[in-house]
Amino acid sequence: MRIAIALFEDCEELDWAGPWEVLAFWAQSFPDDGVEVLTVADSLQPVRCAKGLRVLPDASWQELGTIDVLVYPGGIGTRRQLEDDAILERIRALASAGVLMTSVCTGSLVYAAAGLLDGRPATTHWKALDLLEGLGRAIDVQREERFVDDGEVITAAGVSAGIDMALHLVARLHSRERAVEVRRGIQYDPEPPV
Amino acid sequence: MRIAIALFEDCEELDWAGPWEVLAFWAQSFPDDGVEVLTVADSLQPVRCAKGLRVLPDASWQELGTIDVLVYPGGIGTRRQLEDDAILERIRALASAGVLMTSVCTGSLVYAAAGLLDGRPATTHWKALDLLEGLGRAIDVQREERFVDDGEVITAAGVSAGIDMALHLVARLHSRERAVEVRRGIQYDPEPPV
Repeated sequence: MRIAIALFEDCEELDWAGPWEVLAFWAQSFPDDGVEVLTVADSLQPVRCAKGLRVLPDASWQELGTIDVLVYPGGIGTRRQLEDDAILERIRALASAGVLMTSVCTGSLVYAAAGLLDGRPATTHWKALDLLEGLGRAIDVQREERFVDDGEVITAAGVSAGIDMALHLVARLHSRERAVEVRRGIQYDPEPPV
Repeated sequence: MRIAIALFEDCEELDWAGPWEVLAFWAQSFPDDGVEVLTVADSLQPVRCAKGLRVLPDASWQELGTIDVLVYPGGIGTRRQLEDDAILERIRALASAGVLMTSVCTGSLVYAAAGLLDGRPATTHWKALDLLEGLGRAIDVQREERFVDDGEVITAAGVSAGIDMALHLVARLHSRERAVEVRRGIQYDPEPPV
């Protein structure tokens, strides 16, 4: 089970770092499950995220090889991808190859622009719900869901929703018990103080 | 207001990435608040985190300059710091200089080893509560709290608790209203699916 997390200029940090923690915790704590999690970007050069964090990707798209799951974060960097044919074609190719396509926040806008969400239920960051509605064809925008699992495609709401979506992924790809163990490991018993 | 987030070998990714998102979102969205958030490490070389992510720090400790707040993450890398005099001395010097000392997860073990938590209430990752009890002198270990604000020192529970602690920091350093705005921005309405 190879899971790639996409990085690109101006991707939002927690969009990918939340799923990274959940999925890499799973991979590292349960080696017998045979899970590999890695980051992928255009090149191996540092990627500058939306809030200024600089990260070194594990692989380039060119050398990524076969994957089973893609996690696509959001961030202001997604906007310039909506008309980037090379990126949209890559997304379509991965979906056609049977990769489980997941997104966090405005990552779903890129999936929508690629046509992946036509006729499907999907969600995004609350500020981008109207924008999502205007992309693709007949997207059934879910305004209240934390994440939407439509089989081949899973979309999550904004930023921190990626943590919830990734725990759902562990449950779906392995078991509810495993997801509970990962949740306990990262002590995810949220208590927002405000 | 300068806030430094420490990075070191084998620090746990979400321990620092959660507070980073909260605090950097605040800094970027409300420039008039005059907040600067940056990462700091031994050098400017890439830091390899506990789950394998590699990050480029913004500053070295040597060139950091004055800060107002420190966020110290946990991770397996903290264990070898508990008897590292240079690191413990740095922690004591920052505390003596009046820096607001905050930690996430097992970052509090390092604070405890430096003597910062003597006689104070504090917390850590649930798996490290007993270890915390055995460090320092008369630490009043809080086993059920998401985070403990004891004035000069704030300690948070494991991994994801850093998000809650950081939102509390925004409320304490600015206002409850601002913390609510940041929470809304990162759509932190957690719904753990398991």
